[in-house]
Amino acid sequence: MTATIKMTADDITAFLTNEFPQINMASGTYVVDEVAHLAATLRLNANEHHLRPGGTISGPAMMTLADLAMYVALLGAIGPVALAVTTSLNINFLRKPSPGALLAHCRLIKLGKRLAVGDIALRSEGSDALVAHATATYAIPTENNVVL
Amino acid sequence: MTATIKMTADDITAFLTNEFPQINMASGTYVVDEVAHLAATLRLNANEHHLRPGGTISGPAMMTLADLAMYVALLGAIGPVALAVTTSLNINFLRKPSPGALLAHCRLIKLGKRLAVGDIALRSEGSDALVAHATATYAIPTENNVVL
Amino acid sequence: MTATIKMTADDITAFLTNEFPQINMASGTYVVDEVAHLAATLRLNANEHHLRPGGTISGPAMMTLADLAMYVALLGAIGPVALAVTTSLNINFLRKPSPGALLAHCRLIKLGKRLAVGDIALRSEGSDALVAHATATYAIPTENNVVL
Amino acid sequence: MTATIKMTADDITAFLTNEFPQINMASGTYVVDEVAHLAATLRLNANEHHLRPGGTISGPAMMTLADLAMYVALLGAIGPVALAVTTSLNINFLRKPSPGALLAHCRLIKLGKRLAVGDIALRSEGSDALVAHATATYAIPTENNVVL
Repeated sequence: MTATIKMTADDITAFLTNEFPQINMASGTYVVDEVAHLAATLRLNANEHHLRPGGTISGPAMMTLADLAMYVALLGAIGPVALAVTTSLNINFLRKPSPGALLAHCRLIKLGKRLAVGDIALRSEGSDALVAHATATYAIPTENNVVL
Repeated sequence: MTATIKMTADDITAFLTNEFPQINMASGTYVVDEVAHLAATLRLNANEHHLRPGGTISGPAMMTLADLAMYVALLGAIGPVALAVTTSLNINFLRKPSPGALLAHCRLIKLGKRLAVGDIALRSEGSDALVAHATATYAIPTENNVVL
Repeated sequence: MTATIKMTADDITAFLTNEFPQINMASGTYVVDEVAHLAATLRLNANEHHLRPGGTISGPAMMTLADLAMYVALLGAIGPVALAVTTSLNINFLRKPSPGALLAHCRLIKLGKRLAVGDIALRSEGSDALVAHATATYAIPTENNVVL
Repeated sequence: MTATIKMTADDITAFLTNEFPQINMASGTYVVDEVAHLAATLRLNANEHHLRPGGTISGPAMMTLADLAMYVALLGAIGPVALAVTTSLNINFLRKPSPGALLAHCRLIKLGKRLAVGDIALRSEGSDALVAHATATYAIPTENNVVL
């Protein structure tokens, strides 16, 4: 599979650290677990900022994770494109996450010249049950210039 | 309009401060600007955590604001229900926000016994152009017990 | 407003009759009620094919109406572009329609060079209550050639 | 798997024929191909009503198919509930379908007491590529009485 990805998990971690310092990859909150052909897995080691009463991970934390998983899958597929932007995201919250890490697995279901669409499944680590399911669309800049 | 709301902007601010301390209402990042009949306006005074390269507010910050605006509108309409939860959210990102505060105006387009649906418009303060548009669905607990 | 539209309601009706004969505009089932600046209203005179038990208009009939209202608004804004295609549609069904005609009012909330996004409100004729609410995205072909 | 479904493909075909005569199952346009544990596959043998210029299946025909596949999966899982209704549907159109039958495979990703959520993949028969991807939410009536 390595031959079919343009950036490894380490490449992407370095890229995100540089380009999006506010994500703060160094803190270990978000970890790029795996990058594969048209796919990626991102991990959220939730801290108190992501939690809601009862220890549940907040909806916005899950949306952030889903969006980032899509971006990581896209970087793996097309290489370092800082200016790719989310154009839409749809998420269904299905059940309460278990305590512990949350994993988002994104699979690119369309990779066009201008638009990419991803399907993102969120699960608590060690569980098969879906916690949430999202789809997201990214616009891919043409010649480093997004003209939507 | 006051007669048609169950909590004022101040009531809701106090409620969120208590129940969701991690939102940190006291910091002034999120401000309940207005609560009206089946509607609410929330303000994001973005700080460096919400920004992306070029000073743009991040997509996840906008999703968080949209979701919270919906919850505030719902609290205004039905009173203090800590356990109402988002079941789905759909957002379209339309244009780059201008620097400065971002306002989310939520209008409840359905308020049923078990489900509420809101339409949320995001604009930069002082501008008419939509920055993003979202719809969100919340499940309303029955007898303090969500059984979805 | 006429100065700001590229096709009138009659122009669009003629265009749809020609290009999409299977919509069968001549039957009067779908009627272009109004075309305005970045907006359009479409009417569905539902027949037995659109109904569900109890006389309710079916969900698919509402999705079809919402999608077509978006296309009509887009034609009004950019002129006769047969190859504009829906890339996504999101719809919330809010309450049962009343018997009688269903109106879909689409407002374009983004009109870019490559993507247009519309907000579509569906109401029973003579009623203010929303029956359904949709958002849709269309890809606009560049030089008559969609390269998504 | 049979033990885990409440209605077979034949049961569901008979139910739809009876309850929703306007779908016209007898015409063979829509065919229930398979019902499995929390899943179903529906086939659209498209006729001229579903086609767009160039022989492409129309977006509304795909939305109708996706919605019906979700309903069929739900009937398989919970039995004959005429009054389950779609509350929301989100669809991304990914690529042009090939000529021939279109298959929609629905997998229920949540089956709660009041809400069910399905993930629906649409493919042209004989092809692995996704033509469209949808998620849909149905409200399940409690005691034969939907109170949303």
